[in-house]
Amino acid sequence: MFNSFDNKESQLKKILILGAGRSSTYLIEYLAEQAPTHGWHLTVGDADLSQAQRKTAPYAHVDAILFNIFDQKQREKQISQTDVVISMLPAIYHIHVARTCIRFGKHLLTASYISPEIKELNKEALQEDVLILMEMGLDPGIDHMSAMQVIDQIRSQGGSIISYKSYCGGLVSSESDDNPWGYKFTWNPRNVVVAGQSTVKYMEDGQYKYIPPHQIFDRAEPVHVDDFGLMEAYGNRDSLSYKDIYGLQKATTIMRGTLRKTGFCKTWQILVRLGITDDSYTLENSENMTYLDFITTFLSNRFDVEKSVEQRVAAYMGLAEDSEEMRKIKWLGLFEDEKINLPNATPAQILQELLEKKWILSPGDKDMVIMQHQFKYEIEGEIRSLVSSLIIKGEDNLHTAMAKSVGLPLAVAAKLVLQGKIVPRGVQIPVWQEIYAPVMEELKSLGVEFKDEESKKSQHLSA
Amino acid sequence: MFNSFDNKESQLKKILILGAGRSSTYLIEYLAEQAPTHGWHLTVGDADLSQAQRKTAPYAHVDAILFNIFDQKQREKQISQTDVVISMLPAIYHIHVARTCIRFGKHLLTASYISPEIKELNKEALQEDVLILMEMGLDPGIDHMSAMQVIDQIRSQGGSIISYKSYCGGLVSSESDDNPWGYKFTWNPRNVVVAGQSTVKYMEDGQYKYIPPHQIFDRAEPVHVDDFGLMEAYGNRDSLSYKDIYGLQKATTIMRGTLRKTGFCKTWQILVRLGITDDSYTLENSENMTYLDFITTFLSNRFDVEKSVEQRVAAYMGLAEDSEEMRKIKWLGLFEDEKINLPNATPAQILQELLEKKWILSPGDKDMVIMQHQFKYEIEGEIRSLVSSLIIKGEDNLHTAMAKSVGLPLAVAAKLVLQGKIVPRGVQIPVWQEIYAPVMEELKSLGVEFKDEESKKSQHLSA
Repeated sequence: MFNSFDNKESQLKKILILGAGRSSTYLIEYLAEQAPTHGWHLTVGDADLSQAQRKTAPYAHVDAILFNIFDQKQREKQISQTDVVISMLPAIYHIHVARTCIRFGKHLLTASYISPEIKELNKEALQEDVLILMEMGLDPGIDHMSAMQVIDQIRSQGGSIISYKSYCGGLVSSESDDNPWGYKFTWNPRNVVVAGQSTVKYMEDGQYKYIPPHQIFDRAEPVHVDDFGLMEAYGNRDSLSYKDIYGLQKATTIMRGTLRKTGFCKTWQILVRLGITDDSYTLENSENMTYLDFITTFLSNRFDVEKSVEQRVAAYMGLAEDSEEMRKIKWLGLFEDEKINLPNATPAQILQELLEKKWILSPGDKDMVIMQHQFKYEIEGEIRSLVSSLIIKGEDNLHTAMAKSVGLPLAVAAKLVLQGKIVPRGVQIPVWQEIYAPVMEELKSLGVEFKDEESKKSQHLSA
Repeated sequence: MFNSFDNKESQLKKILILGAGRSSTYLIEYLAEQAPTHGWHLTVGDADLSQAQRKTAPYAHVDAILFNIFDQKQREKQISQTDVVISMLPAIYHIHVARTCIRFGKHLLTASYISPEIKELNKEALQEDVLILMEMGLDPGIDHMSAMQVIDQIRSQGGSIISYKSYCGGLVSSESDDNPWGYKFTWNPRNVVVAGQSTVKYMEDGQYKYIPPHQIFDRAEPVHVDDFGLMEAYGNRDSLSYKDIYGLQKATTIMRGTLRKTGFCKTWQILVRLGITDDSYTLENSENMTYLDFITTFLSNRFDVEKSVEQRVAAYMGLAEDSEEMRKIKWLGLFEDEKINLPNATPAQILQELLEKKWILSPGDKDMVIMQHQFKYEIEGEIRSLVSSLIIKGEDNLHTAMAKSVGLPLAVAAKLVLQGKIVPRGVQIPVWQEIYAPVMEELKSLGVEFKDEESKKSQHLSA
C-alpha cells in the first residue's frame, strides 16, 4: 500500500495534532484520509481523551491519546517521535510546544497570532532547520494568503496598492438563521463577548484614525457582499500593523473589520454602553442574582423606578420600547427573573453563559464564513478597484465552514511541509509566495476559492 | 524665645516636609509660623531647590534643602535627624520614605491613599512605636474625619446609618469663574484628565450598582449646595469599600462623587465618547499634528467630509452646532489649526497640555473647595436626614482653598503628634476618634468648619 510514495516520502512520516476541539474536525479528517496514500502516521492528542477518540473513531489507522501540555515528559516523548506538530491548543500554550519542537528539530504549525516570545525563537528555529508556521488558519491565515496573492500580482504588473480594506466573519447560514441577532457561535464564544475592548486603529485617506473601545460597534460600517446584500463590519484592533506586514507603504487607507449581519452591531453597542460586556471586575453577590437583577445593577435608581426594567433600559439608552434593539435584548432573556448561579462572575462571563444557551448552533444548523478584500490600486496612471471574496458554507454543526476554513490551511500546509514543497524555515507567517502559492492552489481544489471582481472605476462600497 | 514650651516639648523637635509644590503652601506657612512658639525646627526639601527656597523665604528660621528621593544616603541622613516627616511627594515614593522612617523610629504623615505595601508595614511600625498616618489631606482626609465624626455621634445616640452619600470638589470660586466650563485646575491636572477610567461601584437602595467608565459622566447626578444652587457630581471609583472603612454595615445606599458645576459632566462625556481622554496608547505622528488634526483622528471620513470638523463632531455626537457642549469644546481650541508639538503623546496627554493653558488659575483668581455629606439614619423608629457641608474659599492662586484643605490637616496632625496628643501608632487613616477629634477641633479654630443641617423628614436631594 505504500507504493505511491514520492521520493521525498521514502520514510514513514508522523504527524501529531494537539487539540481535538471544534476547529479540528476537517483538519483531522483531511489528514486521516490522506495518511494511507502518503504513508503518514497520525496521532491526535487532547486533554479530554474521549474527545480525541470521537474525532478519530472512523479511522482505525489514527491514534488518539490523552495529552497534557503541562506534562513535560509526555510532551517531549510525543514531539520527539513525530515529524510535524499541529497545535490547536489555546494560544498561550504554543510557546511550550514551540520550544520542544525546536529542541527535537520538528516543524510546528498553528492558527494563532504570532506572539513576541514566539517571534524571538526565529534564530533558534533556523539553526535547527525547523519551520514554526504561525497564523495558518482562516483569520489569521487565509486572509494573509489571499491578500498577498492579489498584492504580489498587482505589484508584478507594476501597480501599487493605495487602499486595502478587508472583512471577515463567521456567521450563521441564511437557512439556519432563526434568531433576531442573525448570529450563532461557530467560534470561541469568549472571543466574541470580549471583542472590541481595545482601541481600533486604522488609516483612512492618509489620516490615522482611532476608535475608542466604547464606540467601536457604533462605528460599524456597511459592506456589500454579493448574494447577501448589505452587511456590516466593526473595526478590528490594529489595522495599522498591516502596513508593514503586507508592505503597503503607499496605501492611504488600511482597514480590517469583522462582518456581522446588519443590526447586530447597533444592539451590541447597547450591551457595551450598559456595561455588561465588561470583563475587568467581578460582581458582588452574582451567585444570588437573576438576569433581571443583573441588568438592574447597570441602571440608576434615580429614574423611573416605578417602571419595568425593560422600560428603564429603553429610556436610559434612548431607545423606543418597541425598537429592534430592545427586541433583540429581550430575546436574550436579560429581563427574565431567572437565577444565574455563577459565583464571582464578571459581567462578560454572565453574558457569555447566557449567549451560549441562546446562540447555539444546533445539529441541523449550517454556518458560513465570508471574507472580502477590497483593493484600490494605481497602475499606468489609472485607479482600479478589485474586490476578492470567499464564501464557504458549512455542512452541519460539526462540519462547519469555520472548522473547514481554519483546519484545511493547516492540514494542507502540513502535507506540503512533509512533501518538501514548503521550504522556508524559522518563524514564519504565510505572507510569502513560497508558502501561500502551493497552499492556495491546493485549497482551491478543495473548494476554498476566491472570486475576483475588477473594475476600472474606483468603487465606493460604503455610503 | 523658647519659654512657652509645654512639658512634652522640652526638647527641640524637628519636622521635615518633603515636597514644596502647589499643595504645600499652607502646610509650610502654618508650621513655620508656629515653630518659634513650640520650639520646632522645620526643614523643607524639594527636588527643585528654588521651589523650596521660594516657599520658605519669609521664614529665616526654616531651612530649604535640595531633596532627591532616590539618594538613599541623603534620605537616611535627613530622616534620621528629624522627629516627624510629612511627605507631599508623588504617592509612589511614600513607600521608600515610610521604610526609612520605620528604620529610624520617626513618624510619617501623608495625604495619599494607603497602598497595599504601606499597609503591610503596620506590624513593623508598631514594633518601632512609629505612626504612619496616611489619607490625612482633604479627600482623603477631611472626608474621613468629618464623616466619622457624624457617624460616631449618631451611633453613640443609638442610631444607625442607612444612607451615606458624599461629594467633594475643588472648584473655581464664583468671582473668578470666567470660562464656559466653570472649572480651573487647582489640583494635579493629570488626575483630572484621566478621572473616570475605572468602573464606578456603589450601592443604591440595597442594590449593587456599576457604571462602566464610558458612562460615568453621562450618569452625573444633581447635588444641591446651599449658596451655590444646583451642582452635579460624577461617581468615584469604589464607594463600596467605604462600607468596611466606615463600618456602614446597615447602609443600603453608599455613594461618593466628585462635584462640578452643572454642565461640565455632559461636555466631558463628549470628550470621553470621542476618545480624547484615552491614555492607553500613543498617537502616530502626534508631533506634526494640529489640534484640528488631533480631533479629526477620532472622526470617520465616511460622513460629511465636505463639512467643517466642528460640524462633523456635532453630527457624530448628536449635538446641535450651537449647543452648550459644542461651545465648551470650541472654547478649548480643539478646532484650531495650531501645532501641538508633543511627540509620542497619548490623547490624554495632548488634552492635558491644552487644558493646562486654558484652565489656569491666574494670579488674582480664587478657588474653592466644597464637601458635602448626606446622611440618612434610623433612630428610635424614625428616619432622619443630616446634611453636613464644608465650603472653603481660596485667597489667591497660591493660597488656594485646595492647598489649605490638603495642607492644614497634615500640619495640625503633625503638631498634635509632636505634642503627644495623637497617640495611636502603626499604619493608620484618620477614621478613629483619637485622631480626628483633636484635629477637627483645631481645624475649626482655623476656619475649616462643617455646617450641619438636620431634618426629620427624609430628604431627596436628587430629582
